[in-house]
Amino acid sequence: MVSAKRVYLFREGRAEMKNLLGGKGANLAEMTYIGLPVPPGFTITTAVCNEYYENERSMPPGLEEEIEAGLADLEQQTGKALGSRENPLLVSVRSGAVFSMPGMMDTILNLGLNDETVLGLAEATGDQRFAYDCYRRFIQMFGNVVLKMEHDDFEDLLTETRKELGAKYDHEISAEALENLVERYKALVRDKAGIDFPQDPKEQLMLAVRAVFDSWHNQRAIVYRRINKIPDDLGTAVNVQTMVFGNMGDNSGTGVLFTRSPATGEKSIYGEYLTNAQGEDVVAGIRTPQPIQLLAEELPEVYHQLMGVCETLEKHYRDMQDIEFTVEKGKLYVLQTRAGKRTAAAAVRIAVEMVKEGLISRETALMRVEPDQIATLLHPCIDPKAEIDVVATGLPASPGAASGKIVFDADLAEEHGNRGEKVILVRPQTTPDDIHGIVPAQGILTSRGGMTCHAAIVARQMGKPCVVGCEEIRIDLKSRRFWVGDREFKEGDFISIDGATGRVIAGEVPTVEPELGGEFGTLLEWADEVSDLGVEANADTPQDAAKAREFGAVGIGLCRTEHMFMEQDRLPVVQQMIMATTTEERRAALDQLLPMQQGDFEGILKAMEGYPVTIRLLDPPLHEFLPDTNALAAEIAELKAKGGPSEEIADKEKMLEKARALEEFNPMLGQRGCRVGIVYPEIYEMQAEAIFRAVVRLVQDGYSPRPEVMIPLVGHARELEILREKVEETARRVQEETGVEFEYEVGTMIEVPRSALTADEVARHADFFSFGTNDLTQTVFGFSRDDAEGKFLRHYLEQKVLPENPFAVLDEDGVGKLIEMSVELGRQANPDLKIGICGEHGGDPESIDFCHRTGLDYVSCSPYRVPVARLAAAQAKIRHGEKKRDAKTIS
Amino acid sequence: MVSAKRVYLFREGRAEMKNLLGGKGANLAEMTYIGLPVPPGFTITTAVCNEYYENERSMPPGLEEEIEAGLADLEQQTGKALGSRENPLLVSVRSGAVFSMPGMMDTILNLGLNDETVLGLAEATGDQRFAYDCYRRFIQMFGNVVLKMEHDDFEDLLTETRKELGAKYDHEISAEALENLVERYKALVRDKAGIDFPQDPKEQLMLAVRAVFDSWHNQRAIVYRRINKIPDDLGTAVNVQTMVFGNMGDNSGTGVLFTRSPATGEKSIYGEYLTNAQGEDVVAGIRTPQPIQLLAEELPEVYHQLMGVCETLEKHYRDMQDIEFTVEKGKLYVLQTRAGKRTAAAAVRIAVEMVKEGLISRETALMRVEPDQIATLLHPCIDPKAEIDVVATGLPASPGAASGKIVFDADLAEEHGNRGEKVILVRPQTTPDDIHGIVPAQGILTSRGGMTCHAAIVARQMGKPCVVGCEEIRIDLKSRRFWVGDREFKEGDFISIDGATGRVIAGEVPTVEPELGGEFGTLLEWADEVSDLGVEANADTPQDAAKAREFGAVGIGLCRTEHMFMEQDRLPVVQQMIMATTTEERRAALDQLLPMQQGDFEGILKAMEGYPVTIRLLDPPLHEFLPDTNALAAEIAELKAKGGPSEEIADKEKMLEKARALEEFNPMLGQRGCRVGIVYPEIYEMQAEAIFRAVVRLVQDGYSPRPEVMIPLVGHARELEILREKVEETARRVQEETGVEFEYEVGTMIEVPRSALTADEVARHADFFSFGTNDLTQTVFGFSRDDAEGKFLRHYLEQKVLPENPFAVLDEDGVGKLIEMSVELGRQANPDLKIGICGEHGGDPESIDFCHRTGLDYVSCSPYRVPVARLAAAQAKIRHGEKKRDAKTIS
Repeated sequence: MVSAKRVYLFREGRAEMKNLLGGKGANLAEMTYIGLPVPPGFTITTAVCNEYYENERSMPPGLEEEIEAGLADLEQQTGKALGSRENPLLVSVRSGAVFSMPGMMDTILNLGLNDETVLGLAEATGDQRFAYDCYRRFIQMFGNVVLKMEHDDFEDLLTETRKELGAKYDHEISAEALENLVERYKALVRDKAGIDFPQDPKEQLMLAVRAVFDSWHNQRAIVYRRINKIPDDLGTAVNVQTMVFGNMGDNSGTGVLFTRSPATGEKSIYGEYLTNAQGEDVVAGIRTPQPIQLLAEELPEVYHQLMGVCETLEKHYRDMQDIEFTVEKGKLYVLQTRAGKRTAAAAVRIAVEMVKEGLISRETALMRVEPDQIATLLHPCIDPKAEIDVVATGLPASPGAASGKIVFDADLAEEHGNRGEKVILVRPQTTPDDIHGIVPAQGILTSRGGMTCHAAIVARQMGKPCVVGCEEIRIDLKSRRFWVGDREFKEGDFISIDGATGRVIAGEVPTVEPELGGEFGTLLEWADEVSDLGVEANADTPQDAAKAREFGAVGIGLCRTEHMFMEQDRLPVVQQMIMATTTEERRAALDQLLPMQQGDFEGILKAMEGYPVTIRLLDPPLHEFLPDTNALAAEIAELKAKGGPSEEIADKEKMLEKARALEEFNPMLGQRGCRVGIVYPEIYEMQAEAIFRAVVRLVQDGYSPRPEVMIPLVGHARELEILREKVEETARRVQEETGVEFEYEVGTMIEVPRSALTADEVARHADFFSFGTNDLTQTVFGFSRDDAEGKFLRHYLEQKVLPENPFAVLDEDGVGKLIEMSVELGRQANPDLKIGICGEHGGDPESIDFCHRTGLDYVSCSPYRVPVARLAAAQAKIRHGEKKRDAKTIS
Repeated sequence: MVSAKRVYLFREGRAEMKNLLGGKGANLAEMTYIGLPVPPGFTITTAVCNEYYENERSMPPGLEEEIEAGLADLEQQTGKALGSRENPLLVSVRSGAVFSMPGMMDTILNLGLNDETVLGLAEATGDQRFAYDCYRRFIQMFGNVVLKMEHDDFEDLLTETRKELGAKYDHEISAEALENLVERYKALVRDKAGIDFPQDPKEQLMLAVRAVFDSWHNQRAIVYRRINKIPDDLGTAVNVQTMVFGNMGDNSGTGVLFTRSPATGEKSIYGEYLTNAQGEDVVAGIRTPQPIQLLAEELPEVYHQLMGVCETLEKHYRDMQDIEFTVEKGKLYVLQTRAGKRTAAAAVRIAVEMVKEGLISRETALMRVEPDQIATLLHPCIDPKAEIDVVATGLPASPGAASGKIVFDADLAEEHGNRGEKVILVRPQTTPDDIHGIVPAQGILTSRGGMTCHAAIVARQMGKPCVVGCEEIRIDLKSRRFWVGDREFKEGDFISIDGATGRVIAGEVPTVEPELGGEFGTLLEWADEVSDLGVEANADTPQDAAKAREFGAVGIGLCRTEHMFMEQDRLPVVQQMIMATTTEERRAALDQLLPMQQGDFEGILKAMEGYPVTIRLLDPPLHEFLPDTNALAAEIAELKAKGGPSEEIADKEKMLEKARALEEFNPMLGQRGCRVGIVYPEIYEMQAEAIFRAVVRLVQDGYSPRPEVMIPLVGHARELEILREKVEETARRVQEETGVEFEYEVGTMIEVPRSALTADEVARHADFFSFGTNDLTQTVFGFSRDDAEGKFLRHYLEQKVLPENPFAVLDEDGVGKLIEMSVELGRQANPDLKIGICGEHGGDPESIDFCHRTGLDYVSCSPYRVPVARLAAAQAKIRHGEKKRDAKTIS
């Protein structure tokens, strides 16, 4: 360690030395290397920072000598000298970590000024005001950063000065007043820091370097690293660079530019320039910068040179660059370059165009776009330029922005919706009974529920904006109002919601429809070519299925059948079925449902023609189809009070009794899924028959339906064995009765730990496994999403008890381990097993990466997440190479 | 197969040929071998039965010849001949499976009789009535068993005959009338079976053999085998044995005896004898048998010989025998011997005494007693001689019998109890609020709830009889009555419950207090010497702890702290703590609870002096400590209606709001266990402080407390890490403040799959693991016990979807697999980890066997199951040898 080089001149480094020089230092070195006009400087390595901490915050011996050698080089290059009265060298001292930590650590500008050199600077620039302004800024920064003084103490003196002069802006303060202010600043330093302001520039420099090292361990940097999972032992480098000034007259200036449009990705320079100004002035917003193109008129040579720099940098980095530059007396300096931040649309366009320009490979293009980001391309969003009045924030349940009148019930929503009015349905929670009001609403807002509550699931399914669990709003359904703090909103008032962020906004907001250019499609085609994972969709209706195909889904991984039971014309029949006291009565009701279900399946199978459709048999507990017991009891009481018809009362009482008998302490852990199918086999038989009759019909019409019957919530192989046999019996019967042969598969959802643990036994009866990771996460953790998200989960995430929300990002250590085990056991017992995932995680890029690594065949997610998943699947392949085993062909 | 011997004479077989000869045949052979007077006979092997079924129910060729050879031997030995008019040989034909299936298959007696031989029998015995009675019985049995005729059709004719004669009993029917009845029977056979009754004795025999084979697959045998897990392919043997008759005068008779008392185990012959009678007569109960000892006077030589037989058989089989014998004209025949069924008390006494007599080893003695059976030794039970009126049956939640007056609420139970009256508390369900009524009650009966509902857990804990989930009873709390069908029971009526069987009985029943002889203690001492598993107890109070020590527990594996929060003087303080809006308010309430908890812990640690006490920090969700929201809402409405004090109303409204905010959709999966401790760390800090202050106090008084702090419901290692640090901080603080050093351990319950899956990570922060198998079973299966047992679980068990109730017997394939994995991972990361189990399964012998095989260190169960567990642990060791790893010393 002692012999290692501690200080690198910019010309000695390269981009790939980022770990040693930090991101900024390595980039400055790289730009120097490729011959760009970078103000000379040197970098003190990150290793020195670690040494500093290892030595209990003392400077390693020998460092000062190396820094002096670096300084000597700067002096030679610039012809200036640190501390020189005649030609003073001023430097900036900046942190530069390996990973960008913007604003987390400290910076000092204009270092080298003292009572002597300030005079030299005044003379050299012919601008006394400028020189003293630099000096007072330096004292202020140095006092704050190095001497740990309060920023406000300096600001107070500045304000005082302005007041004395009757000045409104700083630039109205005269040179003399600034000189005076410098004296006051120095007195403040003496008073608060207890020392004279250091006049020796070398002492200033060593103190500044130490302060930058110290800032690596300041509170906000520690927190930032924890949040962003940056290791503490990377350390920061320190960059010491010659100051250049853009505020030295009209042939000086400063600017920022993007080599392509960060908004649209269009290939043209996009930037701003401010004549006779410094970077700080741009930030302060006192003057309005002009478009970069005007520089071509003001300083054509500089402009020409700048365009060359842009081209060089983009070609060199093979990415759109965000460049900072300064012009000092007609000379261009490049101060920084980095990959430019961009919108999703721009990211897609730039990536695709750069492939066409031969700059990057398709793989690189695919890796350049953040999958989560492209979700925003599929929904309208709030115009980023609009001023909005955010009143509350809930959980971002389904992306997209929507505005409309507040309505508090589904019937009213339907009524208004039918009149073509825009409404937002606001409810404590929604239930399947509210479907008719959800369909016409622009968006849904609930005060309760988590990311998988009814409203959230239905909304995502429909691609409709939704904010749930917004506990800040207090709804009073009686007075048809809600409050946020003291603000009152009544039915008919306009509100807006932003389902991507969870924001609730007063009034209407302008939204923008995203433009899906052809590049988007191209990128996703490339993704499919690369990817090993099939992407299917969760879709319950022909409309959803069509949407899923449009977004490129190659099948339906989860078609829920319970929503089909909820439709208004069917619910009474379903209730009749539940109220049946004999198997015969139950069958009679089921016979009525059969043709309706058959119609549903025909529509969906047709929309997915040629692709597999995984139909999950009835999953929810039966009590979900009966009215709420409290509401029903109230209704009965009311009927009795007003002497209603005794027959109706008796019926309702019977229903109440049944509903009470079906009530459960923990519905999540109750009689759901195949437990309903085992106890009432006739329900599953009806559904299987409806599927197979739909298939027969389509086959007769010349289609090629590919049904897959999925038995939910299997915990023991025997459950699947019994129910598979029932499905097969039904298929045989339908084939015999119709004389039509067809293919089908039978499989199960793995959503309780037991079926995962005994996957070998289960796989003997399954053609496919679909991991229901929502439920699996709940049972593996032993907490329900609805209860956790409303209560302790937020605390757990804030306190970092859990690294991530396991309902959003698959918990690899726990749930993932179980899935891996299950995949291995399942394939051992049944090598042909097709395996996928159909929880919320099927649309999450990190989780998709896991699915690839674990050798799954496909993921299934909501239609609107399909493009995200396609891209994420490609990235996983690029990142990790081939899957563990070849994917079974699924299309 | 063709060449294998199909028929074994009794003298050719031995006891160890049970698989081939069946249990009965092998025993008859064994008795023949050791020279006992067994009527000669032969056995057709079980292999023939399987051959019969393999050949689609046709007799294997050659079998008949082998049977004839066997018959020839019988004829030679007895000097009689089948079908002989002069000296007819009569035989019995009986099934004999490998495992006893009492009453499941068919038997035919007196085979060989026909119109000719009946005359010979009459002459040989000089008793025409006897001969025709034998014949008519034979026709009846043969008709029923072989010809599948209705038993009742024969009985009708018998009744008719009696009527004609004006006779009341069969023995009043004359010989002539019986001869006539035989003719009527034969006519019935012709009429109903369409054949003449077979006169050829060999044909009779072959048909009878076939009928026995057929009975292997009759419905009740199939069901019996399924229930008792007997494989279908074992087959049954057929025993053909010379008939002997005890009804041939006063020097004839029949009897049954046990070589030791089956009730108490006392070493003296216990049996009954009936002069001049056959076995059937004993069963028919027409005459009262006399004690066996009287035989010494009637037939001293026979008695002497019989005593010799008893001694021989007991020594030979080294177990108490149940022997059937017949005396025919002064000659003793032994017809059957088998290990005698016995009560738990007798089993224990016999096992221990036989070790002392040198008959068996200690290991054999330990294996002779069924662990589950000895549970009955610890509770009073219904006098087995009493006549009882069972009105309903619920779930057997806590063993023991109790009688008392019905009371429908806890307050009344307390009131009556305080007056010294016996009461049974009858509730739809109990809640922690009812504790004060449960304590004084003799027993608890609920109409709802499963085996782990509140009532069940509390009752088992207290060793109090309890029946839960008795859905047949409909309780109406308003009219203070319950109904079973049409029967009405009102408050104050006497009922009894039997917690071992779930029976609910009208009126009072006499109970017997079990006598725990010294042999019981001896057996358990032997068990402890053999066993590798420590047995600890689940106990929450000093009383329970003392009881646990009495039963031999070597520690407390689970001390729940929530019951301590429920006591009437504490609940208001706990509610104050929950209602607190600031941490300070919460701390103030906790400060009040601290000394109370400290007192609890002092008592328990003192009662377990020198043994570890595992104290689980608060586990239930906070809303369990608040009143039910519906009840509270009703109370508020009432208060408002009658204009109650506004302050009280406001307080209750505040509480209602809080209770509603804390309500959960799935409380089982909600904010419980360490999730409370993480969000409100001050609660766990208070509990830790109370524990450590109790420890300090005891150390100062000269005791050696061994506290183990258990953090419940950990799912992620980080939860344990955070909370362990808090506990350690508290310990350090208490040690510093008091200057007293003490030892303690910190561990966790493994009760959600995630902690089991990541046991290596969790183990890094744990001194011990305790598998909470109740919750673990719920989360692994994804069903809650309360919901499953009331609904589909019964169906699942009846339909054999699940082989066992996983809440009673640990599910080895699923839950067990996870536990094994977890033990392995945990020990890899922390070799010193102490591992146990503290769910209901800790007291279940099969599950204890699993714990031994999996290498656990201890099991913990309710105090009343401790002796059961000690015995089961010893049996596991005897069965499987050493555990996977040495048990860590836990006492």
